[in-house]
Amino acid sequence: MRTSAASAEPGVPRRGFSDAEFETRLARCHELMAASEIDALLLTTEPEIRYFTGFLTRFWESPTRPWFLVVPATGKPVAVIPEIGRPLMAKTWIDDIHTWPSPRPSDEGVSLLSETVLGVVGRAGRVGLPMGPETTLRMALGDYNRLRRSLPGVHFDDATSVIKNLRMVKSEAEIDKIAHVCRTASYAFSRLPEMVAEGDPLTEVFRAFRMELLRVGVDDIPYLAGAAGPGGYDNVISPPDERPLARGDVLMLDVGAVWDGYFCDFDRNFALGRVAPDVERGHRTLFRAVEAALSLTRPGATSADLFHAMATVIEDAGYAAGNLGRMGHGLGMQLTEWPSHTPDDPTPLVSGMVLTLEPSLTIGAGRGLVHEENIVIRDDGAHLLSRRAPADIPQLG
Amino acid sequence: MRTSAASAEPGVPRRGFSDAEFETRLARCHELMAASEIDALLLTTEPEIRYFTGFLTRFWESPTRPWFLVVPATGKPVAVIPEIGRPLMAKTWIDDIHTWPSPRPSDEGVSLLSETVLGVVGRAGRVGLPMGPETTLRMALGDYNRLRRSLPGVHFDDATSVIKNLRMVKSEAEIDKIAHVCRTASYAFSRLPEMVAEGDPLTEVFRAFRMELLRVGVDDIPYLAGAAGPGGYDNVISPPDERPLARGDVLMLDVGAVWDGYFCDFDRNFALGRVAPDVERGHRTLFRAVEAALSLTRPGATSADLFHAMATVIEDAGYAAGNLGRMGHGLGMQLTEWPSHTPDDPTPLVSGMVLTLEPSLTIGAGRGLVHEENIVIRDDGAHLLSRRAPADIPQLG
Repeated sequence: MRTSAASAEPGVPRRGFSDAEFETRLARCHELMAASEIDALLLTTEPEIRYFTGFLTRFWESPTRPWFLVVPATGKPVAVIPEIGRPLMAKTWIDDIHTWPSPRPSDEGVSLLSETVLGVVGRAGRVGLPMGPETTLRMALGDYNRLRRSLPGVHFDDATSVIKNLRMVKSEAEIDKIAHVCRTASYAFSRLPEMVAEGDPLTEVFRAFRMELLRVGVDDIPYLAGAAGPGGYDNVISPPDERPLARGDVLMLDVGAVWDGYFCDFDRNFALGRVAPDVERGHRTLFRAVEAALSLTRPGATSADLFHAMATVIEDAGYAAGNLGRMGHGLGMQLTEWPSHTPDDPTPLVSGMVLTLEPSLTIGAGRGLVHEENIVIRDDGAHLLSRRAPADIPQLG
Repeated sequence: MRTSAASAEPGVPRRGFSDAEFETRLARCHELMAASEIDALLLTTEPEIRYFTGFLTRFWESPTRPWFLVVPATGKPVAVIPEIGRPLMAKTWIDDIHTWPSPRPSDEGVSLLSETVLGVVGRAGRVGLPMGPETTLRMALGDYNRLRRSLPGVHFDDATSVIKNLRMVKSEAEIDKIAHVCRTASYAFSRLPEMVAEGDPLTEVFRAFRMELLRVGVDDIPYLAGAAGPGGYDNVISPPDERPLARGDVLMLDVGAVWDGYFCDFDRNFALGRVAPDVERGHRTLFRAVEAALSLTRPGATSADLFHAMATVIEDAGYAAGNLGRMGHGLGMQLTEWPSHTPDDPTPLVSGMVLTLEPSLTIGAGRGLVHEENIVIRDDGAHLLSRRAPADIPQLG
């Protein structure tokens, strides 16, 4: 879980993080907690716990067991986790690990967590947990109510802003991982024209693209969506169907691949032979929308500024924006993170943020196009992490 | 999303489900709701919503947007979802779809959901949602509190038992999908000896195995864990490290692959050359533990009975059980589902349940072995879905 041996391949980052990285994250967290007068954070989700510990496993796929991390106002985090997780957690920089034999529905870690929280904050302390946008509580609601009843003097308040402000700005080591998976997925996309042809069903296109992504170096592909059709596609979140690709289709693939626990999230469009003129012009419009956002991106601009820059290009070209609800978002340990590029998200861009730019437009009755790139914000503006798509939609076959 | 054209390959089930399947699920649900005096179910998680709608997408990977399904005491479910999901939801059997433009943190569907719930249950009705073991609420806790405040006369109670009793017993169409992905993964495991050799780092073993799983027909591999070492491994939830496989290692791979949204979950152990005598004997012991559980499995036996049958074989052989907390569990739309084979889980086995049998044992200082098979319960007992592992640990190379 800590930094492993350097890879033999040049350009591949080290896996894991140094202890110093976690110490820096914790120090920033303590500052934010002090400013919010929070005595302890209670965290329950995979990215929150991994952010402070480095605990990386796919085991979260099983909903059976809750996992808890308590971050005191001073000192290192305390893990309260199922016994099955102790060996792996013991390999991280965390020292204080409490476990219970799970599953145990009659007391699924609640009494152990209650004792731990009491020891950290006392009988009348203030516990912060994420309750705001884009957060969830990953424990049974009944157990959360039981925990609160066991600590009647303790206040449970929203601490979304602490976690959000920490995680929105990435470290150089985090950026290296995201940049690596973006490069790798960009290379896989460049190979797609050799792999896909008219007549292939979308299920097989997905299968071949997943295999190619793995072959060229990603660890996993937790997200892959796509669509194909003449004159655009009707939605961008579908699994593949078995309809064979036909001449005149536009094919879109949107990939969220991971390397060492960090995501890329961008898409590419391809034309099967000649596509409708509106698809060609729509693709160029989305390219120009991204150019407009790129030229405006710098510390101090806002998420809303990015939205309006992209929407203006789309509307000036005579199109309506798509129905995605935003034109990009943050990116990191999760496929999508704060902020969202919506008309009114006031989040100021900060050097070290990793974002997607994702303009979409509609072409007539329920069909449209979407395009997405990944960037990191630096003092001098946006730096692309995904290899820039061409302005003209590339043709397959 | 509905039943698609039959696959050209013999033995491959159809994708999707018939409308009749959803009608049957809903009718069973209405009976259970009536018995529990629940006026509406409120569901928020991927498997819960997919179970009643067929809504299948990887888009849940994004935490930004909540999704809601309201199941009234009579009549079809009502979807309250982000606008981006309407086209895909409209392809399911659901008719009543309400949407809001998301993300919209100031009102992330809460007022629309509140109106919908009010319309279904009235001002003093009883809303059931899962609050018990193995469940979570997938919406911001602050929004849940806002919803409750908006409906002061409505009671929100635990409805875990409704969902659990429904989902634990699979339909024939569900069993077909699980059986298919188990067969496919079994075939991929049979090819592993040709793919792995001494000196390969575990990261590359995982990569090659993922590619082979895709090649032979699974859709995705949301879960893959494994470990290797002399004399057993210290945990079973780790991602791969870069240590090269060495002679004398035992290698374990545990795979949760999916086909059309349904999981397999079983593992295999392999020996690199000759392994320690305790590993050979331990593997045979776990094989016999599964045999004991298989011979006992029939409707009416309990999860606890399965645990004790396996634990007895392990202890009689002079080993201690592993630290996994259970010896198997349910399986279906999730990698792990109710029930758990623990010493005291009283859940009676019912024809149509799909389960794993997963005995584990420790071999000296913090090392052990685990073995897992997948079965379906029929009136005449257990039927294997995974291809049975051999009693003697197979050798690679």
